[in-house]
Amino acid sequence: MRLKEIYDFLDSVSPFELQEKWDNSGLLVGSLEDEIKKVYISIDLDEEILETIEENSLIITHHPLIFSPIKKVNFDSYSTKLLRILIQKNISLISMHTNIDVTHLNKYVASEILELNLLENNSYICYANVNDSFSNFANKISSKLGLKYIKYVQCSNEIKKVALVTGAGMSMIGQVDADCFITGDIKYHDAMEAKARGISLIDIRHYESEKHFSPLLEGLINGYLKKNKLKAIIIASQNPFKFCTQGETVE
Amino acid sequence: MRLKEIYDFLDSVSPFELQEKWDNSGLLVGSLEDEIKKVYISIDLDEEILETIEENSLIITHHPLIFSPIKKVNFDSYSTKLLRILIQKNISLISMHTNIDVTHLNKYVASEILELNLLENNSYICYANVNDSFSNFANKISSKLGLKYIKYVQCSNEIKKVALVTGAGMSMIGQVDADCFITGDIKYHDAMEAKARGISLIDIRHYESEKHFSPLLEGLINGYLKKNKLKAIIIASQNPFKFCTQGETVE
Amino acid sequence: MRLKEIYDFLDSVSPFELQEKWDNSGLLVGSLEDEIKKVYISIDLDEEILETIEENSLIITHHPLIFSPIKKVNFDSYSTKLLRILIQKNISLISMHTNIDVTHLNKYVASEILELNLLENNSYICYANVNDSFSNFANKISSKLGLKYIKYVQCSNEIKKVALVTGAGMSMIGQVDADCFITGDIKYHDAMEAKARGISLIDIRHYESEKHFSPLLEGLINGYLKKNKLKAIIIASQNPFKFCTQGETVE
Amino acid sequence: MRLKEIYDFLDSVSPFELQEKWDNSGLLVGSLEDEIKKVYISIDLDEEILETIEENSLIITHHPLIFSPIKKVNFDSYSTKLLRILIQKNISLISMHTNIDVTHLNKYVASEILELNLLENNSYICYANVNDSFSNFANKISSKLGLKYIKYVQCSNEIKKVALVTGAGMSMIGQVDADCFITGDIKYHDAMEAKARGISLIDIRHYESEKHFSPLLEGLINGYLKKNKLKAIIIASQNPFKFCTQGETVE
Amino acid sequence: MRLKEIYDFLDSVSPFELQEKWDNSGLLVGSLEDEIKKVYISIDLDEEILETIEENSLIITHHPLIFSPIKKVNFDSYSTKLLRILIQKNISLISMHTNIDVTHLNKYVASEILELNLLENNSYICYANVNDSFSNFANKISSKLGLKYIKYVQCSNEIKKVALVTGAGMSMIGQVDADCFITGDIKYHDAMEAKARGISLIDIRHYESEKHFSPLLEGLINGYLKKNKLKAIIIASQNPFKFCTQGETVE
Amino acid sequence: MRLKEIYDFLDSVSPFELQEKWDNSGLLVGSLEDEIKKVYISIDLDEEILETIEENSLIITHHPLIFSPIKKVNFDSYSTKLLRILIQKNISLISMHTNIDVTHLNKYVASEILELNLLENNSYICYANVNDSFSNFANKISSKLGLKYIKYVQCSNEIKKVALVTGAGMSMIGQVDADCFITGDIKYHDAMEAKARGISLIDIRHYESEKHFSPLLEGLINGYLKKNKLKAIIIASQNPFKFCTQGETVE
Repeated sequence: MRLKEIYDFLDSVSPFELQEKWDNSGLLVGSLEDEIKKVYISIDLDEEILETIEENSLIITHHPLIFSPIKKVNFDSYSTKLLRILIQKNISLISMHTNIDVTHLNKYVASEILELNLLENNSYICYANVNDSFSNFANKISSKLGLKYIKYVQCSNEIKKVALVTGAGMSMIGQVDADCFITGDIKYHDAMEAKARGISLIDIRHYESEKHFSPLLEGLINGYLKKNKLKAIIIASQNPFKFCTQGETVE
Repeated sequence: MRLKEIYDFLDSVSPFELQEKWDNSGLLVGSLEDEIKKVYISIDLDEEILETIEENSLIITHHPLIFSPIKKVNFDSYSTKLLRILIQKNISLISMHTNIDVTHLNKYVASEILELNLLENNSYICYANVNDSFSNFANKISSKLGLKYIKYVQCSNEIKKVALVTGAGMSMIGQVDADCFITGDIKYHDAMEAKARGISLIDIRHYESEKHFSPLLEGLINGYLKKNKLKAIIIASQNPFKFCTQGETVE
Repeated sequence: MRLKEIYDFLDSVSPFELQEKWDNSGLLVGSLEDEIKKVYISIDLDEEILETIEENSLIITHHPLIFSPIKKVNFDSYSTKLLRILIQKNISLISMHTNIDVTHLNKYVASEILELNLLENNSYICYANVNDSFSNFANKISSKLGLKYIKYVQCSNEIKKVALVTGAGMSMIGQVDADCFITGDIKYHDAMEAKARGISLIDIRHYESEKHFSPLLEGLINGYLKKNKLKAIIIASQNPFKFCTQGETVE
Repeated sequence: MRLKEIYDFLDSVSPFELQEKWDNSGLLVGSLEDEIKKVYISIDLDEEILETIEENSLIITHHPLIFSPIKKVNFDSYSTKLLRILIQKNISLISMHTNIDVTHLNKYVASEILELNLLENNSYICYANVNDSFSNFANKISSKLGLKYIKYVQCSNEIKKVALVTGAGMSMIGQVDADCFITGDIKYHDAMEAKARGISLIDIRHYESEKHFSPLLEGLINGYLKKNKLKAIIIASQNPFKFCTQGETVE
Repeated sequence: MRLKEIYDFLDSVSPFELQEKWDNSGLLVGSLEDEIKKVYISIDLDEEILETIEENSLIITHHPLIFSPIKKVNFDSYSTKLLRILIQKNISLISMHTNIDVTHLNKYVASEILELNLLENNSYICYANVNDSFSNFANKISSKLGLKYIKYVQCSNEIKKVALVTGAGMSMIGQVDADCFITGDIKYHDAMEAKARGISLIDIRHYESEKHFSPLLEGLINGYLKKNKLKAIIIASQNPFKFCTQGETVE
Repeated sequence: MRLKEIYDFLDSVSPFELQEKWDNSGLLVGSLEDEIKKVYISIDLDEEILETIEENSLIITHHPLIFSPIKKVNFDSYSTKLLRILIQKNISLISMHTNIDVTHLNKYVASEILELNLLENNSYICYANVNDSFSNFANKISSKLGLKYIKYVQCSNEIKKVALVTGAGMSMIGQVDADCFITGDIKYHDAMEAKARGISLIDIRHYESEKHFSPLLEGLINGYLKKNKLKAIIIASQNPFKFCTQGETVE
């Protein structure tokens, strides 16, 4: 199947032009004329993944491999190291990042994974009704996501309305209109800011909140690929973090 | 005691002009002509702290209260909310941030707290010899810092040389010349980058790695204050984060 | 009365989003949740005004107190000095600057105060028919404004059409299509430019041409405030300038 | 005499490279190879001056004719209108602006014209001891400059130390370390700022404070020109402003 | 005839507001009030042209005389040297550059001069069907333009579709969708880029591809000028380049 | 041999830090740890060259393959197309561009190739004495470079002093102090500018004036490589341009 056909189908599912100005979604490695034998889906790339997947494949990731434009290809950074393997194995790469956040991902995680009672989904932020105690709510969230260990900032005992952004959403705190905000990669100064604003936080982690990208996208494209005698294979890039409590590994 | 005298003494201990271009260390709230009755030290400000400290005091913090310049003082953000209390209670605020990182803090945490075998301290990064297994080393670090729970990225079983930056140091990963980097506030993409570069990471957290600012500064200024019949009082701003594992609070 | 209700009413009278990009109109000090006891109007703030007005009031000014964003609150500049008093007395501040210039002020001064025969009012410049000698016209303008002393640039003996901008309008000289331009704060190079272009100038001063903001705004909001059992009190910030001729004070 | 020789002499008297970054001092119109018959000095250019001076002359002004770079030469603005006459009459133009402010002019006006007791002259600001009442001092200044009418801001009854910048110096208010600042072209917001800082102001006007440029420069260059059988002719560009009080012209 | 009338007619023929952001088309020298005695057309100005044309004329050129805004008028650069002559002879100058490229010139050269079979003309690029061998096509192009000598990059033996931009069009190579691109002023790196993309190039030179501006514009305006008793005179600025092969001059 | 050793030797011959700010000289593709089997030198890369050279080689070029930083690696542009081949064949790439222009190349071409009588070599411009007629001089230059066909701008019959910049040097015309300037890639507007300034031009072409890079560099490094049992192989990237006169190919 020609790469161009798959690219055009993905663009119809979640238009690349909806991406944020700073984003780099689209065809990052490969030529639209390439013939594709296999299609893989992953939230990210790492060396282990690239070892296992076959030559002449396409891989669709959530995060763009190239963020900062490249001036020297010295194979010592994340992007140039993996770029070399992609080229050597003739693997094409398409990234669907902020375009699919807007069209599908935030809403999918909020309603399908967390089973929240959705109020609205205004571009980058999802809102839901809660009306629960903070501790019950935090437990529910962590259990739905399978997180045994969580980090949070608690500002009140009751939560009425929650806002959700998958990945790292703290740059949006100024727009959040809710008493609890759940997102990943929360830093210390973000926590101080939220506490002063009286907004509780639950850190649902970056990788763990976005890994749902893969089954979501699979559901969106498998019908189309089947007609073309292809199939999307989900392949999990590894979470680089390990967690342990007093020597014991936790998740 | 006049605020100007204390300011000049702090400037002689750790010159404010050594701060980074993006930093805002210095006298942030108050007038050099103010008469100071009490001196407090904290890594940060929060509402609880400001309630307990007395009027006409000076508080010296590690983090500047004002980072983004202020156009509207609406008391809804961290900085404007606390600015109001400072002004109402006539409390002056001096911040010593990247200037004291360079002159004292990184080195102090590396040698006094973590008891590492220091190699060099080139402005923002401290290096030390290790020669230990990753798991032993990670255990030692977490126990010195009293962290029961830790997050890490492991790239090898042995660590020869470690680099340390207190606070949030991942923007320096490109300059790190070591096989393990310890710092705080490590985000997911930082972890992916480090993994590709083969550099292990141990997240020693932002607050927990910098809270040593207070006893360090106390040691540096108490002699001087005593001569002026004052005394520095350490007061701990609260870590906004709570951590729990399967419902149990950990640290 | 809640500050938010007054803010919303002012926004309906003269929308804040009409302000120029470089302007800082809006709620500058205070929280929308504040309860307001009294409402004052002034073109500007100064220390005398802030002494006389009561705690828990709102003051609406023409000029924004904060223009350059604030990084250090050292009470030595105009804006930080007055900011301290506002906060200590819990006084809220709203500024209506270029938004009300566009919607009301220029037109009001041209037709109600100067009694000119208005031709058009295209956003920032008002035009009027004159057909008078320069000296008659200049005398009429200065007498309507109560200015005993005036500064002018005369390029012709007759004036057919005049342009008016209140405050300091000389940056608009390139767009002026008239044989006389009246505005305030005219500097020497502005005068040289106008003379070369053959456009006469009459300096109606900044404060004196804009002090009409207060009665104008009072007329626009008093009906609404009355229904809410409040009343706008006009309070005059002092013109910082004094003028004298050979030892004698003039105006 | 070749223009290049005069240019080089002026550069030795007051080096052009000392000008501010935003300034445009130097040879603005003409070629270094031109043969010069007459030399004129004026603070500025206007049409009357250019009518009276002879072809093939050089005119040295304080203010640069060209500030904003020119894209269209339509003879409707101050600079393009006069540029045409300069070219048609083959008159060369050199401007000595911020370079001569630093090397000579501020100091000259402070000591020779105002007969102040000079303390220091740090690049752009001159300081002098005063120790007089504000009203005596203001009277003395206005009488030395021949200003019958003056505008001022009074913050105290006594003046100890005064700062002076000729022309329009209010952008330097943040650096002024004196209880009175004298300069020209003072605008309303400048006056509000100074009042809050407790610094009195006396407006000595732009043209009137800088017209001393001409005799000063004449004294600096006439010896040299004489040796070359030339002579500098002072020619006064007109002050564009007229002033009147209740119909009576004042100065 | 008043210059303003001619300017408005030209603007109706090819609106100046269609020019590119970096361009400086429009009235570059002269006043809209000028009375015009003669009208000349040329692709450019040079000293020879300005010697031959009469005072009080208008000259309409393709290239703007002023590109970089002028800060010093020292008569040593192309633009300031010719500006002096224009002003001395009271000659007005209008330039029609990228506006007429879009509305007329590219299309005119493609269809009238090169007699290509036009496909489309999307703002700056014209496309035509070819279906010929590269060598036949290159010979045809050079003979239509009267170029005895040509420079080219050949990527294939057959040409199906050609793109054309008059003047210097290589900055548009990334948008070209054709197997041959003809334009002028092709540099070495441009040629390397085109070769890698598999796009053949024929260099039709800058001057030689744009000199058709003059007869084109004459055709567009002579009817109008005639009604006003004027006539456009074509005058050829000289091509600055000479070409020779082994000592023999070629073209 | 390790790439790092060769890199360090090249840096000692012509330090990379001497490059211009806009340049991208240095190690562009490859890792300093790579083991190098063969070394090639070329002014540029093209597909034919990369086909012929062996895997695990180093190629040193004059022009950097990557100029604009890369965001998408789609194999359709010059740099991404060749980047793929470099990676697939594991070929490393070092570019020595403006650093070697300054240290060696301009001087080498001026004295060794053109046999000019060198006056000075101030960073980017070489000067030489000539004292010859323009036509003799132009013939001599074209014969030394083997250019049968040349393009020039003649402003005078005699040449006293010539300036030389290899490659494309016309952006330096404002600094040239000579009556003739020889460089490559001269565009039409450059020629107009030079003509107005009275500076003659001879276009010695980009490729043809810089191809001397290869033998020059070979001479500089072969001694060192020999000691390490390697040898630099000169390999000529193709000049993309062909030239013909009335159907006959010329050079």
